[in-house]
Amino acid sequence: MDHSDLPGKMDIWVEERHRDITALRFRVTDVLFSGTSRYQTIQIVDTEGFGRMLFNDGAVMLSERDEFVYHDMIAHVPLFVHPAPERVLIIGGGDGGTAREVLRHREVHSCHMVEIDAMVVEACREHLPSTASALDDPRLELIIGDGVRYVEETADAYDVVIVDSTDPVGPAAPLFGKAFYGNVARILGDGGIAVAQAESPFFESEAQTTLLESLTARFSGVHLYNFANMTYPGGLWSFSFASNVLHPLRDFDPDRVKRSGLECRYYNPAVHRAAFALPSFHRQALPAGVNPED
Amino acid sequence: MDHSDLPGKMDIWVEERHRDITALRFRVTDVLFSGTSRYQTIQIVDTEGFGRMLFNDGAVMLSERDEFVYHDMIAHVPLFVHPAPERVLIIGGGDGGTAREVLRHREVHSCHMVEIDAMVVEACREHLPSTASALDDPRLELIIGDGVRYVEETADAYDVVIVDSTDPVGPAAPLFGKAFYGNVARILGDGGIAVAQAESPFFESEAQTTLLESLTARFSGVHLYNFANMTYPGGLWSFSFASNVLHPLRDFDPDRVKRSGLECRYYNPAVHRAAFALPSFHRQALPAGVNPED
Repeated sequence: MDHSDLPGKMDIWVEERHRDITALRFRVTDVLFSGTSRYQTIQIVDTEGFGRMLFNDGAVMLSERDEFVYHDMIAHVPLFVHPAPERVLIIGGGDGGTAREVLRHREVHSCHMVEIDAMVVEACREHLPSTASALDDPRLELIIGDGVRYVEETADAYDVVIVDSTDPVGPAAPLFGKAFYGNVARILGDGGIAVAQAESPFFESEAQTTLLESLTARFSGVHLYNFANMTYPGGLWSFSFASNVLHPLRDFDPDRVKRSGLECRYYNPAVHRAAFALPSFHRQALPAGVNPED
Repeated sequence: MDHSDLPGKMDIWVEERHRDITALRFRVTDVLFSGTSRYQTIQIVDTEGFGRMLFNDGAVMLSERDEFVYHDMIAHVPLFVHPAPERVLIIGGGDGGTAREVLRHREVHSCHMVEIDAMVVEACREHLPSTASALDDPRLELIIGDGVRYVEETADAYDVVIVDSTDPVGPAAPLFGKAFYGNVARILGDGGIAVAQAESPFFESEAQTTLLESLTARFSGVHLYNFANMTYPGGLWSFSFASNVLHPLRDFDPDRVKRSGLECRYYNPAVHRAAFALPSFHRQALPAGVNPED
């Protein structure tokens, strides 16, 4: 038998099923890490075409090929709206990608990152240096602990809070609730901004609605903005933007992006504005008061 | 053995592999049609959660759940920019979804649709009435034939030409070429608009570049715009917009959308503008002259 035409690739695939109706698969070349912490099972694999990928409990967290999309949009939108984002708090974000983008802003004096699961951080430090690269920045303080308790107890004040969470199951579920955002609003003060991973408008509109109702209970201005994720089911994905004072478009000065000298692979001033233009089906699904017509 | 907790669903999946590095899967409940024409294998399946889906040669063409995204964006963007879109030509589009959206515009007097594969049309008429619904509109003339030859030979003139093609392999390959667009430019005249399915900026940037180079050789104004497709690999997908006279944003009047009374599930004036805001990596990959900074 002649095998000379075989590509010589291993036929190993990792699959994320979504609601048991669809699945995304990626061709795996190596399993670099697999471990189970108190909170979740963490896996880092190398793939054919997507670089290394991080999975928590079987759900794609990131791929090296497209993580820039998610991390650009969660970090640069609030940091280019806030006039002086000196003190930033990240809840979650153990892979380090959000901190990496936050710390590219020179205005940031201190970034506190509260990640519940030390194993995620250690695994990414070892196997995902491209996202974990900024975890040793002297402006970053990494706290291994529960973000829900942290915002309850801290006496610190912040300009921007970024909730870079997994889906609302297990320890991440309270991160979509009113009690949590009551505390976030308190530590931000009126001029602050809270941004959060807000799920898929196609597949997870209930979770998105829960989050938005928690936000509108605690903030007078709540907006949703979208981006295209290559490795999440459905492609279209959302972040929420909440503030009592700052408006994500009216308080955005595109010249500041130019002056900053920051070059981003996804984010730019036109993308910033465009992200808040929601498709009609998505606008219609929003709770009252979210993304008001201006 | 107690089976009472089993969901009772068949575990049958259809899979589209992309470049042999990633795959999208959908849970199938029924195979409604399977046939092989001179041009391709056509399959229509029913799914758990996406409604009916059309596959050509194993590639997803559409799902009932999200086809409104693609068809809104291929049809309404040019038809709301052209001041009097009376004569429309569709190349491809055998499922009927593009014609359905085109014919919602009252200004359209005639829509010619040139589809190479009669089997696609017949299968969709029978099994996808939701997209094929407009194929019996008296303003529509369906021509079963080769779109490449049609634009070479026709003496008709058009205001808008929409190229709703499959990927650039087999009979669709010439639809990405210079000769084809030379003829499209001729039958449009200076005030016309050509819009085409332009592949994925993540996965198919070579095909996208080929198309854009064909367009810049034949039209003085060429733009790309993006949308989020739930069932195509990578999510982010593009259409091209080419015209010698009309600009997709400067010649767009959002009030006209309101006056038309058309309610679309994806398209709205804000989405129209936002679609032309390309991510930085995408802008940087464009051939010279495409989406010039205005």
